[in-house]
Amino acid sequence: MSPTDRTRVRRVASNAHYDSATLHAIVDDAYLCHIAFSDSKGAHCIPTACWREGDYLYIHGSNGSRMVKHLLENDCCVTITHVDGLVLARSAFNHSMNYRSAMIYGRFDAVQGNAARNAMVAFMEKLAPGRQVEIRPGSDKEYAATTVLRIPLAEAACKLRSGGVEDDQEDLSWPVWAGVLPWTRAALPPQPDAACKMPAPPYVLAWSKCSSAT
Amino acid sequence: MSPTDRTRVRRVASNAHYDSATLHAIVDDAYLCHIAFSDSKGAHCIPTACWREGDYLYIHGSNGSRMVKHLLENDCCVTITHVDGLVLARSAFNHSMNYRSAMIYGRFDAVQGNAARNAMVAFMEKLAPGRQVEIRPGSDKEYAATTVLRIPLAEAACKLRSGGVEDDQEDLSWPVWAGVLPWTRAALPPQPDAACKMPAPPYVLAWSKCSSAT
Repeated sequence: MSPTDRTRVRRVASNAHYDSATLHAIVDDAYLCHIAFSDSKGAHCIPTACWREGDYLYIHGSNGSRMVKHLLENDCCVTITHVDGLVLARSAFNHSMNYRSAMIYGRFDAVQGNAARNAMVAFMEKLAPGRQVEIRPGSDKEYAATTVLRIPLAEAACKLRSGGVEDDQEDLSWPVWAGVLPWTRAALPPQPDAACKMPAPPYVLAWSKCSSAT
Repeated sequence: MSPTDRTRVRRVASNAHYDSATLHAIVDDAYLCHIAFSDSKGAHCIPTACWREGDYLYIHGSNGSRMVKHLLENDCCVTITHVDGLVLARSAFNHSMNYRSAMIYGRFDAVQGNAARNAMVAFMEKLAPGRQVEIRPGSDKEYAATTVLRIPLAEAACKLRSGGVEDDQEDLSWPVWAGVLPWTRAALPPQPDAACKMPAPPYVLAWSKCSSAT
């Protein structure tokens, strides 16, 4: 992607990335995005679940939602940010964070009919691979009450910081610990519903393993 | 806080909270917020580090930043969201996420002089308690190039979902595992700078413990 006037990163431009692989990886690691849009009451920043298929980011909402109605008629900015750690430098103003962020500009459109159903199935597949065939599927009424929206990943920019401390040469001898305190998103043990008598399926067992591995 | 026209939650209003204790807890658990504002190019959603003191949320930025300049002259919306887990219901459309979110409306103002320095010290204290006295402190020049901004936590709303699956009565016998797959933010082992010969201070040792405990 070529940067546009809206997506060109000015601050620490060396941390900017405009390639699809970087963008897709950031979106695929997210369960949530924040969407900025403005109406007569001002700017709003709304968190909502998201997923990706191909070169589109998808969200869904109730037909009656103010956000859904507004997004179909106006441009917006969708942002995803992962914070990966604290960077503890030797000098106060060289402290930083490691992060991966993506900003997408454009307009959502509504996905209709089978395409909407397929998108919702893809969302379930992201959340819990293999679960779609096990659950009570959505009814026509449930699908009809839900709007699936997608925005092209065409006008977008990523900004990343990774790696270690960047201190100025004259600060390197300052007698203080320096380094990175990293985080990750870690699974905790699954919590079965009290009334659930079914054995845990593979994606739940995998969640447990993920939990014990961290 | 009483909800205003901008902060009153309409969707699943039973999940809304307007009390300061809930708001403070959500802000204090965050290192990052997303800020929505609009300019002549449209709506923007910018991630930035944040911290709280009293009834204000603080951010900082370079004096020359477009966002800093804009935020001092226009209203915005600041949102913080923590995703706590996936809620796997027996029916497709009762799937959900557990989350804690806060939205704050208003306008930032610039914090000046000693108040700005004190706010930056409070930020460091949040990131790494006790570190401020160890580091090479900010110079007058560094402080002068940085703007500290704060927004009152006066017009705000929180929305939370926690707990288990909420299936409809007629779906309870559907033969599928149901429950919650929870997450947490977990520390990974500290990564000392290659040139660092200093022993790890208490807040770094505490980070390691936090890591092994998960």
